[in-house]
Order: sequence, then C-alpha cells, then structure tokens
Amino acid sequence: MLIKVSQPLLNNALQQIAHAVPAKSLIPILSGMKLEAELDGITLTACNGDMMLKCKIPSSVNQVIIHETGSTVIPARYLIDIIRNLPVDLITLTIDQNPRISIQSGNAMFHLNGMDPEQFPQMADFDNQDRVQFPNHLLKKWIKQVSFAASSSETRPVLTGVSCQFDRNEFKLLATDGVRLASRTAAVNQTFTERHAHVIVPGKNLINYAKILNDEEDVTVVTIAGSRILFKSNNFMMQSSLLEGTYPMIDKITRNSYTTEMTVNSSRFMHALERVTLMAEKNNIVKLQLNPENTAQLSSKTAEVGDAIEEFSLEEVHGDPLTIFFNGKYMIDIMRAVDSGQVLLRFSGKWNPIIVQPADNLTALYVLTPIRSN
Amino acid sequence: MLIKVSQPLLNNALQQIAHAVPAKSLIPILSGMKLEAELDGITLTACNGDMMLKCKIPSSVNQVIIHETGSTVIPARYLIDIIRNLPVDLITLTIDQNPRISIQSGNAMFHLNGMDPEQFPQMADFDNQDRVQFPNHLLKKWIKQVSFAASSSETRPVLTGVSCQFDRNEFKLLATDGVRLASRTAAVNQTFTERHAHVIVPGKNLINYAKILNDEEDVTVVTIAGSRILFKSNNFMMQSSLLEGTYPMIDKITRNSYTTEMTVNSSRFMHALERVTLMAEKNNIVKLQLNPENTAQLSSKTAEVGDAIEEFSLEEVHGDPLTIFFNGKYMIDIMRAVDSGQVLLRFSGKWNPIIVQPADNLTALYVLTPIRSN
Repeated sequence: MLIKVSQPLLNNALQQIAHAVPAKSLIPILSGMKLEAELDGITLTACNGDMMLKCKIPSSVNQVIIHETGSTVIPARYLIDIIRNLPVDLITLTIDQNPRISIQSGNAMFHLNGMDPEQFPQMADFDNQDRVQFPNHLLKKWIKQVSFAASSSETRPVLTGVSCQFDRNEFKLLATDGVRLASRTAAVNQTFTERHAHVIVPGKNLINYAKILNDEEDVTVVTIAGSRILFKSNNFMMQSSLLEGTYPMIDKITRNSYTTEMTVNSSRFMHALERVTLMAEKNNIVKLQLNPENTAQLSSKTAEVGDAIEEFSLEEVHGDPLTIFFNGKYMIDIMRAVDSGQVLLRFSGKWNPIIVQPADNLTALYVLTPIRSN
Repeated sequence: MLIKVSQPLLNNALQQIAHAVPAKSLIPILSGMKLEAELDGITLTACNGDMMLKCKIPSSVNQVIIHETGSTVIPARYLIDIIRNLPVDLITLTIDQNPRISIQSGNAMFHLNGMDPEQFPQMADFDNQDRVQFPNHLLKKWIKQVSFAASSSETRPVLTGVSCQFDRNEFKLLATDGVRLASRTAAVNQTFTERHAHVIVPGKNLINYAKILNDEEDVTVVTIAGSRILFKSNNFMMQSSLLEGTYPMIDKITRNSYTTEMTVNSSRFMHALERVTLMAEKNNIVKLQLNPENTAQLSSKTAEVGDAIEEFSLEEVHGDPLTIFFNGKYMIDIMRAVDSGQVLLRFSGKWNPIIVQPADNLTALYVLTPIRSN
C-alpha cells in the first residue's frame, strides 16, 4: 500500500468514525481502525461490536492519490491523535514491511504496527434488500425528537432501543423508558418500501448517527438485513445491531376524551419548568396546579432548603381543575424535543398519563406518567 | 433587607466567585454565599477555607437599588442556578422572615433558608499594610507563564505553591515540582513597596485569579497581612492563605557556561514535540539528539505499538553533539508558556538540567531535569 491524502480530509473522516472506537475492548482488533486503499478511494472503518461506522474518501487528483492499493488495521487512538497533530499538508501512508505502516508528513515519520485486516469484522450484506430513504435534515430532527426517551438502564435492554416501524405509507419512531414515551409518525412516499418492517435500534447508535450526520442536503438510505440495520448517506454509513424483544404498545395510552386540556406557549412553559425544577428534591417532583379560576402554577420544594412557585399563562384551557405531580426534568426534555411554538397538555385526572402534543402537529406524541405524591 | 438588582449583573458576579464555593464541605456555612446589601451596593463572598473571593456590585439608579440594607448567607449552588435561570429583568431579594430569603422575578418566586452571616469567615484586615500594584494584563501573563510548573501532588505541600518575591526593584515568581521549574522576574517601580517580602501562594488560587481577572485595563493591588495575601482589582478581590515552608533555591541551577546551546523556533519545536510525544510511553520519554553535522531530531517509541521520529531545524547552534532524554509533555508545557518566537535551549551534558529561555528575554527561565534512559 502507498497512498497520499490531504490532512484535513483524513482528519475529518477519522473524527466522524472515532465514536465507534471502543474506549476499552477485550477484542484487540476492535482497538484498531481498518484502512482500505482501493483505486477509487480510501475507506476507514471502526467498530465497537454493536455499531460499525464507515467513511469513504474518494480519490481525487491532488488530495487523495492511490499509488498502490492495500489494507491494514491501525491502532485507532494513535492514528487519530497523529493525524490530528500533523500539519495541513499531504500525508504519505505506506506499508513497507507488513504489518508495519509508515505515516510521513514533512519532517515527521511515524511507524505503527498494523493488525491483520482479515480479522476485522465485516459489514453484513445489504444488497438485494428493500430500502427506504429519508432526507437527512428530517431524519436528524425525528431522531432527536424521540430518542431521548429511550432508557439508559440495562434492566430492560429492549427499552434502551428505539422502535422503528416502516410501513407502506408511514415511518414511525417510538421510544420509552417505562415512565415517559416519545413517538413520531411521518408520512412517507409509498414507493420507498414494499413491505412492513418493525425493528428496535439501540438508542445511542441512532443518536450517534444523528450527531455526525453533517450533510443535511443529502438523503439517508435505510436497509435491513437479518439482525442488522444500515444507514447510508453519501460516503458515510453506520451499521447497527438490532435489539430483540417486544416493544410496549402505545395504543392503550391515548383516549378519545380528557378531563382537562390546556394549551401553553412551549418556550415559556419550559423556562418556568427549568426554574421550578431547580428547587425540586432529587426525584425532581414538580407540582402542576390548575385552579378553578383558570390560573395555573408550577411549584416544588426541597426540605430544609426552600421552595419555588411560578404562575404560567394558558393560551387555552378546557375541563376540570387539577393538581398533578410529575418528574420536572422529564417534562423539560419533552418541551425541548417538541418542535412547536405551542403545546397541548391533556390530562385524565391525577393518576393517569399526561399526554403532550405539539398544538399544530399531532403526528408527534409524548406521554409522561405522573408521580403519586401528596 | 430589600434590594432590586438586574439579572445580568448579579449572574455575572456570582459566576466570578462561584469557583470559591467548595464542591463538598464539612463546614455547612461554606456551602453558602454571603450577600451583604449596603447603601453603596451589594457584596457577594464565597470561601472554601483556603481562598475567599469577593465581588462588589455598586448601587446604580436603574440596575442596583438598595431599599433596605441587610445581610445573609444563601445556599450557594441553589442561588447560582436560580439566578442563572431567571430572565433578563430586575430581581427582587427580600428577607421577610429571617432567616428566609425570597427571590422574585416576573411570575417566579423562590424561598431559601438563609444562614447566619455572623458565622461566615471574615476577610483579614489588610489596612495599613504595604502594597504593590501590577497592571492586570501583565500579572495575568506572568501567572500563566510560571504557575503551570507548580506541583499537583500533596507529597511536598510547599511545591503546590508559587514563590512570590517582592523586592524594591523587582517582582519574582517561581514554581517547581522538583522535576521542572519556571521563573519570571519583572522590574517594578520602586515606589510600590518599601520592604522585602517573600511568600508562597497556593498555585491553584493564583491560576484561579488569573482566569477570572477580566478587566485587563485595570491594576491589581497586592497586600500581605500575616499568613494571608490579598489581590484586589476594581470591585473584585481574592484572599488566599499562604503556604509555610522553604522553597527550593534556583541559584545553583544556572551556570556560566554550557556545553551545548541551540536556538529554535518555539512554535515549530513545540508542534514537533507534540507529535513525537504521541508515541512516547506513559512516562512521556522523548529523546533529543544533536548530531555532529548539526542536524537535530526528536524521537520516541512505545513497545509493541510503534515509534516516531522528527527532524527539527535549528536557528543557531554551538557546542558539542548531544543525546538527552526528557519528559515530552513537560517540555511542551514550557514551550506553551514561553512568550517568544525563539527559545534558547542550554545543556551541560545528558545528566544535567536543561535550561530554556526566551531568546529575546532572559527574565523568564525554565528548567527541566532530564530522564536517565538508554
């Protein structure tokens, strides 16, 4: 192998896939990054067992020159640090004495012991599978709106995932940790897929993909093969494992009628919540009270320290007075995810789940279980 | 107490002194921040036992209104979070039922249980003491240039401090952790102080002061009283404890003549060091070699992973060829602190300390002990 590549291009590609390098791995090969040089460009791959990220840098006359093809696996942390510290210039990568790789730029010369590329995990075969396609800017938004509600605890592993349902006419994302739930339905063009698919993707992988998805003009093609899913956008792709198990159903949570409904300005309600939650005890209990004369307030207290109370204005209100307790931080997360100036809060008494929806768009739905308190 | 103060002013003052609030303290009163309202303004004080920060917000017609004077101690973490989350508007602070303090802004109302201000540590009395005065921008620079070399280990507590010598004609800062040393001498106008003073100030307090010193146009007045030192700039002041003990002397380290001297471009030498140190083992051993034909190179290696080698150019060189090993990270720290385009490196063989000085300014001096290696 003998290639020359410009430092900013290589550095940028490495930063994109660095997330997939495990901090510590019992499998030595995973501490490496696979580098493949083919005539049409360089491909870099990192894998933490659960997620594989791949980035391609296409050949170009002055910036990516392939003198001799080849492949190797390079210690990832060293490679990332070295490339980041090299000057903006052409870098020469050579395998002179296999498995030793040389990295040279200006007066600097590094030698790293490579590993056998045959040992590195392979991507699954996604050819000949159905595919759906989403504009990147929308996919990024949907993932952010839903994935925060996935569980971070491994007690019920399936809840660390985000349920993704691909149907003829719609794409539905749903996440829940058992206390709160976020879901989002998007109409899709039916030519995208020919069959129904329902998979559970690890939430942290989805969040990762949304974070590094930088070309918002482009589209992401999604393919499923066996127990793996592939997200591909331009020269970048993520393969993720899928979670096994049954995801909770949402159908029984929503009702036809509610005892209390109120519409609030999302940003003002969120800021009031942020302030009041500051004085909530460690479990973040916040009290919401709707008084008979239709004034509403949030309050909280911490024993021996103090309390907070804040009135908030209602854009619209129907139904019965109400006193309900919930996790303030969880409601703040929902308000941050809601992509709308006004939100509709629906209640069925103090023991039943609170339903939150953007007032202008009922395709997103958030549910928060209240806390029993006095 | 009844005062009104604009949110940005109060928030900014709190952020400045927040560094002195201990993360955890066995002394309950130190988890609080003292607030004193007098006719001429509000004073906030935080203290972690070792360092006290004080910030004054002077009265002003529209932004800081003192209706009724008074003082209290407020739980610091709550106060900081609450004020940061309030909107940009006037905040009303009241002691209605002592020790309860109310914080009100718009529709938000907080109550916090205050503590007895009489219990809060007092500042030492610095009146009638000699004082020296430095322009803030210079003091900030000197502290940065020297204090990094102080020890972070409590094995020899005195080395966690920075030695400060105030003389009739010069001010000398010196820090060392036993392996490296940084010192800086500044000529001062002799009218500033009438006597000699030599104190050891905890390095982290000095670094803290340099960090939050934001008015670089102003001057800092330094006063010493007993075992305490006061740094005061405009409406902000820091009182620090002093360390007891004998600080190492520097006089025996420098020599009249050296066997090898070289002048290098500081930025280029630093970048080469940064790259080569990436491949050094955990103790950061880097090898510097000056060849008989006056070429020079840095190199390093990590067993089983690889190695790095980089030639660097010399602006000037005198003396014998040389091979010497040192801690690469420590040399990088020195290069970052050196405020000069070129540095002079002086050697007396491979076992003796390396002397580093800005080529154009011999008032700063850095010393690095070499590592014995093969």
